[in-house]
Amino acid sequence: MRIDVALLPDLVADTDSVFAVVDVLRASSAIVTLLERGVPAVIPAVSVEEARELRERLPDYLLCGERDSVPPPGFDYGNSPTEFAALDPKGRRAILTTSNGTRLLNQLAAAPAVLVGALLNREAAAKAILALGAERGRDATVVCAAAPDGRSIALEDALGAGAIVEAALRLDASLRPTDAALFARDAFLARRRDLRDALASARHGAELVTAGFSADIDYCARLDISSVVPLLQRDAGGLLALRPV
Amino acid sequence: MRIDVALLPDLVADTDSVFAVVDVLRASSAIVTLLERGVPAVIPAVSVEEARELRERLPDYLLCGERDSVPPPGFDYGNSPTEFAALDPKGRRAILTTSNGTRLLNQLAAAPAVLVGALLNREAAAKAILALGAERGRDATVVCAAAPDGRSIALEDALGAGAIVEAALRLDASLRPTDAALFARDAFLARRRDLRDALASARHGAELVTAGFSADIDYCARLDISSVVPLLQRDAGGLLALRPV
Repeated sequence: MRIDVALLPDLVADTDSVFAVVDVLRASSAIVTLLERGVPAVIPAVSVEEARELRERLPDYLLCGERDSVPPPGFDYGNSPTEFAALDPKGRRAILTTSNGTRLLNQLAAAPAVLVGALLNREAAAKAILALGAERGRDATVVCAAAPDGRSIALEDALGAGAIVEAALRLDASLRPTDAALFARDAFLARRRDLRDALASARHGAELVTAGFSADIDYCARLDISSVVPLLQRDAGGLLALRPV
Repeated sequence: MRIDVALLPDLVADTDSVFAVVDVLRASSAIVTLLERGVPAVIPAVSVEEARELRERLPDYLLCGERDSVPPPGFDYGNSPTEFAALDPKGRRAILTTSNGTRLLNQLAAAPAVLVGALLNREAAAKAILALGAERGRDATVVCAAAPDGRSIALEDALGAGAIVEAALRLDASLRPTDAALFARDAFLARRRDLRDALASARHGAELVTAGFSADIDYCARLDISSVVPLLQRDAGGLLALRPV
């Protein structure tokens, strides 16, 4: 099996891959945390309008998301993993819309398999993408949500992708990495003891610190604290937790 | 001053930058070596046809270049830095056409300044891009030639770009790196003691080893062995050596 990293959504080379979507700050980290806290499913919504329409049809669902890092008017929650880490969902499902990550999840909806990877769950995400690729006879692509302009690399996502590749190459010595996968792996190795500072030095990380979300940077920089892998299962109600054995 | 890395030519964000063009395997390394050996100028030609036409007008020039890693029929030399390192040019200038690097040099011809960077001259290239950016009041972009498809990152160029950024950030503490620049710098730091193996593991590096150019990999992986910086000066006959003070 081959493993590639698409540092931008437009650079996906093989649309027939199994995908891990990485949006470290903060959609991926938020989704992992919501499922970790016991939310049974998260529906990724493309727009604020779509999220509000879903909520009208599904009034029990938590309405979560952000634009410019803050919750749109009327939303129950923003997109803060730290806030979600303290949540008691009482069995409620969630709707989530973010500037970047949830749009990418919807773009990939026709792919053979789509899971969500973050630093928080990267070892589990690596195991899951290897298992899904083998099961479905596909190669693997780790795709970075990157910046909203679609052209600028986001350091935090590139390092998150590299973290997943690093674990995958350790777990499967026969895995064939592309140049982009090796490059991301190498950058992760240089920063693995320094992930908090790396995230804070990234363009979007610095924006979040300025906006008062410094605690989210600390939280999202933690490696392998969750074994939850969110897997997109449209027919079953969105992103559901998969726990690799 | 800001420093950015464009991991693909199409990802250049600021066309009004001063540019360092990086094609480690092998155009950048070849050009540095030709000038280092005393070739007074190198004309980068886009196509084999253009190179042949130039040679008809300039019969004293050495005709150098490659397609699929080997010299086209009738060429004096290929694109092998190892071969150029043993060259006695006797004052002759050169014409060079390569699959990727010389095309990119021509694409950027209208930019405020364009120099050539490789691992061989990366400290000198970093000094030169800082000096040119300051002199002309522009930001700096290190642009990777990458793969001929225009969409796939080349590990060797990404590491070469990271090497230049690493030196530039050391030389100028006020320099502001983009996320892509930090990412490339980090990957270089992980591989700096291991550059030969990194280049040999890259897609194009492996192709060159298979084609019998293993010695070029060894040669191009050497860091800071030249202080020559090729600077594109169209009116003065192509790429000329600049030696930063």
